[in-house]
Amino acid sequence: MTQQIVTPYNVSGLVDYNKLVKDFNAELLTPEQITRIGSVTHRDPHIWLRRGLFFCHRDINPILDDVEKGNKIYLYTGRGPSSDALHLGHLIPFIFTQYLQEAFNAELVVQLTDDEKYLWKPVTIPETKQYTIENVKDIIAAGLDVKKTFIFNDYDYIERMYPLVTKIQSRITFNQVKGIFGFQAHDNVGKISFPAIQAAPAFPECFPHLFGKQKIRCLIPCAIDQDPYFRMTRDHAEALGAYKPSLIMSKFFPALQGSQGKMSASDPNSAIYLIDTPKQIEEKINKHACCSVKDLDLFKTHGTDTTDDVPFQYLRFFLNDDQLLDKIKTDYEAGKMMPQDVKNILIKELQELVQNHQIKRQKVTMDVVEEFMRVRKLEK
Amino acid sequence: MTQQIVTPYNVSGLVDYNKLVKDFNAELLTPEQITRIGSVTHRDPHIWLRRGLFFCHRDINPILDDVEKGNKIYLYTGRGPSSDALHLGHLIPFIFTQYLQEAFNAELVVQLTDDEKYLWKPVTIPETKQYTIENVKDIIAAGLDVKKTFIFNDYDYIERMYPLVTKIQSRITFNQVKGIFGFQAHDNVGKISFPAIQAAPAFPECFPHLFGKQKIRCLIPCAIDQDPYFRMTRDHAEALGAYKPSLIMSKFFPALQGSQGKMSASDPNSAIYLIDTPKQIEEKINKHACCSVKDLDLFKTHGTDTTDDVPFQYLRFFLNDDQLLDKIKTDYEAGKMMPQDVKNILIKELQELVQNHQIKRQKVTMDVVEEFMRVRKLEK
Repeated sequence: MTQQIVTPYNVSGLVDYNKLVKDFNAELLTPEQITRIGSVTHRDPHIWLRRGLFFCHRDINPILDDVEKGNKIYLYTGRGPSSDALHLGHLIPFIFTQYLQEAFNAELVVQLTDDEKYLWKPVTIPETKQYTIENVKDIIAAGLDVKKTFIFNDYDYIERMYPLVTKIQSRITFNQVKGIFGFQAHDNVGKISFPAIQAAPAFPECFPHLFGKQKIRCLIPCAIDQDPYFRMTRDHAEALGAYKPSLIMSKFFPALQGSQGKMSASDPNSAIYLIDTPKQIEEKINKHACCSVKDLDLFKTHGTDTTDDVPFQYLRFFLNDDQLLDKIKTDYEAGKMMPQDVKNILIKELQELVQNHQIKRQKVTMDVVEEFMRVRKLEK
Repeated sequence: MTQQIVTPYNVSGLVDYNKLVKDFNAELLTPEQITRIGSVTHRDPHIWLRRGLFFCHRDINPILDDVEKGNKIYLYTGRGPSSDALHLGHLIPFIFTQYLQEAFNAELVVQLTDDEKYLWKPVTIPETKQYTIENVKDIIAAGLDVKKTFIFNDYDYIERMYPLVTKIQSRITFNQVKGIFGFQAHDNVGKISFPAIQAAPAFPECFPHLFGKQKIRCLIPCAIDQDPYFRMTRDHAEALGAYKPSLIMSKFFPALQGSQGKMSASDPNSAIYLIDTPKQIEEKINKHACCSVKDLDLFKTHGTDTTDDVPFQYLRFFLNDDQLLDKIKTDYEAGKMMPQDVKNILIKELQELVQNHQIKRQKVTMDVVEEFMRVRKLEK
C-alpha cells in the first residue's frame, strides 16, 4: 500500500481526497452549499465547483452569510515565486480567485512569498524579486481587478506585517511546526518561523490601509496541500481578536503523465506552460498526455474509464460547455469517440486558453504591476 | 560547587571571568593592547580598560590597525527596551561606547530590540515602542554624537534589515540555537529565529544608507553575556562577504547586594536607578550596598578584602581619580579608612553622576530622539 503524504512541501503517493478531507478535519462542499453560492452571487456557480474540482472547505457558511447580507469579506491567496514559467496548474487558483472576486465583489490580497523561496531554494534575493515581478504579470493576466486587488511581496511588505508576524510567532512553538509541517531540528530557523508569515495575511490587521481596524472575515481559495498552514492559523485567530479564516480548497491539477498527484516544475514534459506555443501544446498532449486507452480493439468493445484519462480530466477543468463535456464522457466511455478526437478538442481549448493568456499578459506593463503592488486604499 | 551559567538570558552562579573567557574561547585584553588603544587614540585609555572592567575581546587588533591607518570602522551596540527606569548597570555599555565613538571617531549604530521584548515578555507592541523612546532618551543622554549615531528599533527598521536577516536565518539551524542559547522545542518560533535579528547589525550590509557596499569592520562593545550572539554571528560572516565582527566585553556591574552576578530589574533595592533622587541614592548605598566589613574591631586590626566590597567596587567604575582610588584601596584594605567614609565618597560620586544624567536627559526632546532615529547619511 502506498502511503499518502500531503504537506505544503511534499505531495506523494496516490491521493485519496475523501480520506484527506477526513484526516485534515475539513468538510466536503455539499450540493446545497454549491447551489447557495449560486444564489448569493446571482450567477451559476463556477464549473470547478459544479464539477467537484474545488471540493472542500472550512467555514464557508459564515462567508456566504456575510456575502448575502452585504457585509464586507476579503479574499487571500498567494504564491511562492518561481523562476520557471507558470504552468496550467499554477493558474488554477488565480482563475478561481478571479471568479470569487467578481462574484462576491470582494477585495483581494495576493502574497508573493519571495522570502520563502529564498529560505528553501538556492537562489539569491534579487532573483526571487525578479521571479516575483514575472509571476505577478501572470497572476494579473488571470483577470484580477486592479480596483479591488492588492498584490505584495514579503521582502517589501515586511515592515507593515512584522508586528502581526511576531504576534503569531509568539504563539507557535517549534514542536507545533514540527508536528504540522514536518520541520526538523536541522532545518534553518527561517523556515521554522516562516509559517507565521504565510499566516499573517489571513487576518485583516495585516492590511491597515485596506481594512483599518475592521473585524471582517477572510476566505482563502487554495489547493488542499496549503491547508496545514491555515489549520495552524485558525488555531490562533481568536487570541488575535480575528475570525478564523475560511477556506475553499481544490484537488490537484494532474500532471500530463497521470491523473494523480501534482505537476512537477522540474519535468518540462509533465505540464503545459503558459509560454508554450500552439505547436508545443499539440505535441505535449499528443505525445505525453496519459491516455486511459491502451488497446484500441478492446476500447471499441469495452470503452474506457475517464477517471484515469488525462485528456478527459483536463477537459473537466477547461471545457466550459457542460453539455459537450457530458456527451464526450458518454461517447468516450462507451468506446464511440476516439481518444485522438478527445485530444484534439483539448488541444484546441488549451491553445486558445494559453494564447489568450499570453495576449493578456503582454498588456501587463510594469506600470500595471506597480499599480497593483502600490500600498493604497482600494475603491469601493 | 555552584555551576556557572552565562547566556544572554540567564546569568547565575559565581562568575569566574577567566574561566568564562576560556570557555567562550575569547581573549583577555593584554596590557600591551590597552597601551596601544591609548596610542592609536592619542588619549589615555578609558579607566574601565585600565581597571580591567572591559577586560576581554575578540579580534581587537584588526580594529586598532584600521583606526591607526585611518580606515573606517563602525561601532554597534544595543538594548532590549524595558519599562523600568534604567539603572547604572544599563548605562555602562553606553558610557563606554560614547568613549569609543569619540576616541575612534567612529560611526555608531544602536539597536533597540523591541521585537525581542515582545517575544519574551507579556507586553504589547505599543508598550515596547514606548519603552524604546524612553530608553533612547537615556542612551542619548550618555553623550552620543548625533552626527555619528544612528539609533533604530526593529519594528520600524525591519524592512531594511529583513533581506540580511533571512540570509542569516538560512544559515542557522534549530540545533545550533538550541546549543548556543539553550532554546527548547517548546519555545516560540519568534525566539528561535530572533538571534538572526541581533546578528544583522554586525554586518555593514544592514545599513546601506550609512555604508553602501563598503566592506568595513564592526566593533561591538557589550557585557560578556552577549558573546554567544556574536560567536554565532562571526561563524557566518565570511559566507556573507563580511568581516567577522570584533568584540570588546565587560564584566557585569555588581548588584548592591553583592559583587558577583548581574543586577536585577525586578528588585528596586538591588540597583541605583537613573531616576533616583540624591536621598534615595544615599539610603540605598547606606542600607543596601553589601559591605565587606562585618566586624569593626576585626576590621581595625585585619583590614578587609575590597574584592567583595560593593561600595569599593562601585568606586572602581565611577571614581575617575586613579590616585584617590589607590589611596582608598590601600587605606581601606589596611583598616585605616572607615567603611562609612568609603560609602560617603561613593554617595557623592553617584549623586553627581545621576543628577548630571538627569539634566542631560531632560534636554533630550522628541525632536532630538527623532533626529537620532531618522534613516539618514551621517556626517563625515
